Amino acid sequence: MTGLLFDLDGTLIDSVYQHVVAWRDALDDEGIDIPVWTIHRKIGMSGGLFARALLRETGVPLGPEVVARLAAGHQEAFARYAATVRPLPGTNDLLHHITELRVPWAIATSGRMATAGPTLGLLDIPEGTPIITRDLVARAKPDPHLFLAAAEALSVPIEDCIVVGDSVWDLLAARRARALGVGVLSGGYGREELERAGAFRVYEDPGDLLLHLDEIGIRDPD
Amino acid sequence: MTGLLFDLDGTLIDSVYQHVVAWRDALDDEGIDIPVWTIHRKIGMSGGLFARALLRETGVPLGPEVVARLAAGHQEAFARYAATVRPLPGTNDLLHHITELRVPWAIATSGRMATAGPTLGLLDIPEGTPIITRDLVARAKPDPHLFLAAAEALSVPIEDCIVVGDSVWDLLAARRARALGVGVLSGGYGREELERAGAFRVYEDPGDLLLHLDEIGIRDPD
Repeated sequence: MTGLLFDLDGTLIDSVYQHVVAWRDALDDEGIDIPVWTIHRKIGMSGGLFARALLRETGVPLGPEVVARLAAGHQEAFARYAATVRPLPGTNDLLHHITELRVPWAIATSGRMATAGPTLGLLDIPEGTPIITRDLVARAKPDPHLFLAAAEALSVPIEDCIVVGDSVWDLLAARRARALGVGVLSGGYGREELERAGAFRVYEDPGDLLLHLDEIGIRDPD
Repeated sequence: MTGLLFDLDGTLIDSVYQHVVAWRDALDDEGIDIPVWTIHRKIGMSGGLFARALLRETGVPLGPEVVARLAAGHQEAFARYAATVRPLPGTNDLLHHITELRVPWAIATSGRMATAGPTLGLLDIPEGTPIITRDLVARAKPDPHLFLAAAEALSVPIEDCIVVGDSVWDLLAARRARALGVGVLSGGYGREELERAGAFRVYEDPGDLLLHLDEIGIRDPD
């Protein structure tokens, strides 16, 4: 039985661009000028790696106080944008369908439960579904820990799991964990970026994946 | 002598994501739910085509009053985000350098002068530089009119011009106009998306283009 391990932001929920602009606001408040497309391409990474990458790009050493202020500033700004955040097209239909088929599935996100909580409320998640957040593992994406923990919570070997994600970091983490990776375009990466990061198939969004589930080996019972 | 025709948003100015989220806000106010990544991929298109594409995707006929309210709502929301808009890395250095080399150059944007005006104020633009906006031509990108008008204003044959743009619409318009197209990643498209739309070379941003100007045939005098 194949297990499905879903990323959250940009994969099930249409929240990437609001996160990007919220980071831009927080950085601007600290006087740090980073081109917005480079913020976009780092979303979904662990917060620690994100801060280290920023440090390299700005050349300005970011002390732990600045990193903490940035994280708080991002959270505050994101709250202002959260009113326009919705599930992506087909998300809840997909989750209902795989639940009916008794496909084991879980969510694995680089975000912390404090940030992910309200977003998860937009989804129809059956009781007992494993939700693996940054709080529960030592390292977030592109390290494999989140997906390994999600597979373990499902009691499905990671080699029998498919990771579904919108970012290069999901797909790199999937390869490092030895899961298959499926990309979705709904986080705003290009198709070829996801394929080159290892996606063995790319769909537009959860609705498009639902229409093509048989392509990744998930079928209605005969 | 090669002429350079620059797109504005996402090419010289770091404003694409703020425009995207401003459109999301305006659409949300009208109760229209469009995934944000699809808005991103339409930025830089003419407003008329953008509205028609939305109509097709939503299936809801958008009357002219709704289209007008959306445009006004976008402009109002963008004004809220404009404080974080900056020139992209290297933009003014690039413009100074090509001006010193006496390379003829112009700006050609699908935006109207009312929206583009404040943004243009962030750039060091010598007097007499042609600025072709949506107000001045019959059709915007991906139609070729803006770039054709810019080449004419420079008195350089379009076949001797290079269009620099961040979006697929810039590159399609460049091909239709028979100019060469150069892509920049700073609007958030992937490299391969721009290459497949016809970019004969892709750089990260204006600063990266400045470092590699000789690759597109623009050299310091011997």
